[in-house]
Amino acid sequence: MSQEQLVNIVTKIVMEKMQQDDDILIPIGVSNRHIHLSREDLDFLFGPGYELTKIKDLKQPGQFAAQEVVTIQGPKGSLEKVRILGPLRNETQIEVSLTDGFKLGVKAPIRESGKLEGTPGIKIIGPKGSVETSKGTIAALRHIHMDPQTAQKLDLKDKDIVDVEVKGERKGILGNVLVRVSDKYVLEMHVDTDEANACCLKNGDLVKISRK
Amino acid sequence: MSQEQLVNIVTKIVMEKMQQDDDILIPIGVSNRHIHLSREDLDFLFGPGYELTKIKDLKQPGQFAAQEVVTIQGPKGSLEKVRILGPLRNETQIEVSLTDGFKLGVKAPIRESGKLEGTPGIKIIGPKGSVETSKGTIAALRHIHMDPQTAQKLDLKDKDIVDVEVKGERKGILGNVLVRVSDKYVLEMHVDTDEANACCLKNGDLVKISRK
Repeated sequence: MSQEQLVNIVTKIVMEKMQQDDDILIPIGVSNRHIHLSREDLDFLFGPGYELTKIKDLKQPGQFAAQEVVTIQGPKGSLEKVRILGPLRNETQIEVSLTDGFKLGVKAPIRESGKLEGTPGIKIIGPKGSVETSKGTIAALRHIHMDPQTAQKLDLKDKDIVDVEVKGERKGILGNVLVRVSDKYVLEMHVDTDEANACCLKNGDLVKISRK
Repeated sequence: MSQEQLVNIVTKIVMEKMQQDDDILIPIGVSNRHIHLSREDLDFLFGPGYELTKIKDLKQPGQFAAQEVVTIQGPKGSLEKVRILGPLRNETQIEVSLTDGFKLGVKAPIRESGKLEGTPGIKIIGPKGSVETSKGTIAALRHIHMDPQTAQKLDLKDKDIVDVEVKGERKGILGNVLVRVSDKYVLEMHVDTDEANACCLKNGDLVKISRK
């Protein structure tokens, strides 16, 4: 193969790759600290049989922000007005940023949603009672919710790990981003407030996958 | 040139480049919110002719953390025990994270130290009085302090902008990093708490320049 032929082949592949990536931009969703509750813990905090009041649908189908908020308290401090997200789950999960963790005095590990084994507990205070959880406090692993059609276009599958390129004043690349694929999902990348502020990202900003 | 020759040349250049970069690791310094005061503002806050009490030398020669702290107050909230760093400067400068800015209700622009034109003011409260500054609140532009010898090895000069690679659980690349070169500096990269938490970086963690 001649040098020219080699250059032409490489150029073609790179151009195709860039074209492909340019087609799919991923909107950002910034997750402020929030909490998912089990039926049991909701009963403790708000009274037996209590039902959450939806105030806003979230972008992911079926998920919503509730009117109800709680206080979470760690050994060093507490955070008030922590929003409850619905619907109820099998296990209570408290999602905070590492900045929040310093204020609370709780070392929240970076975890995928639902992987709560060995995570620290926290005190949750509601209007009718309080709960001391034995686990469930995490800093969410940054992740992308993706529908199967988009996953196919990007040649990605559920649980792949990708790098994501961020443009702008605090541009850069976020590595170790988990891809979750389901027909229940809408394309959206979730970052916490530390990640959003470190990259000057706001809700609806667009990012793209830079490497699979 | 044959394909083999081309591959050999590229391999040699890449290996040399990797070798060069591997030689120089940059320690991280995480900057929590802090304040630099002018003589005039120190007088207002602590009384005429007041002198700061050094409690700890910082890594950059001549810079120190003072015993004295102040409260800063914005339209939405306040932050207590904000550390004063010495020595005094010509202009008062308040360095916060974007997370802090949301709490205060102050939109701190991302700025290089000393570039305070058009930045928002804030109320500073000391034990003997308070000051309402007309400007000076910034989120520090991430930057690397570098001695001239290191700059020469890395083929960098003052005010260059580089990308920095971060390893670990929240790995990635921080772009738009300002390089400041002076024989008064010791090699150190400064990030704020948002950036540190977004990347799981602690004081003394090592990063390296990935692209000039």
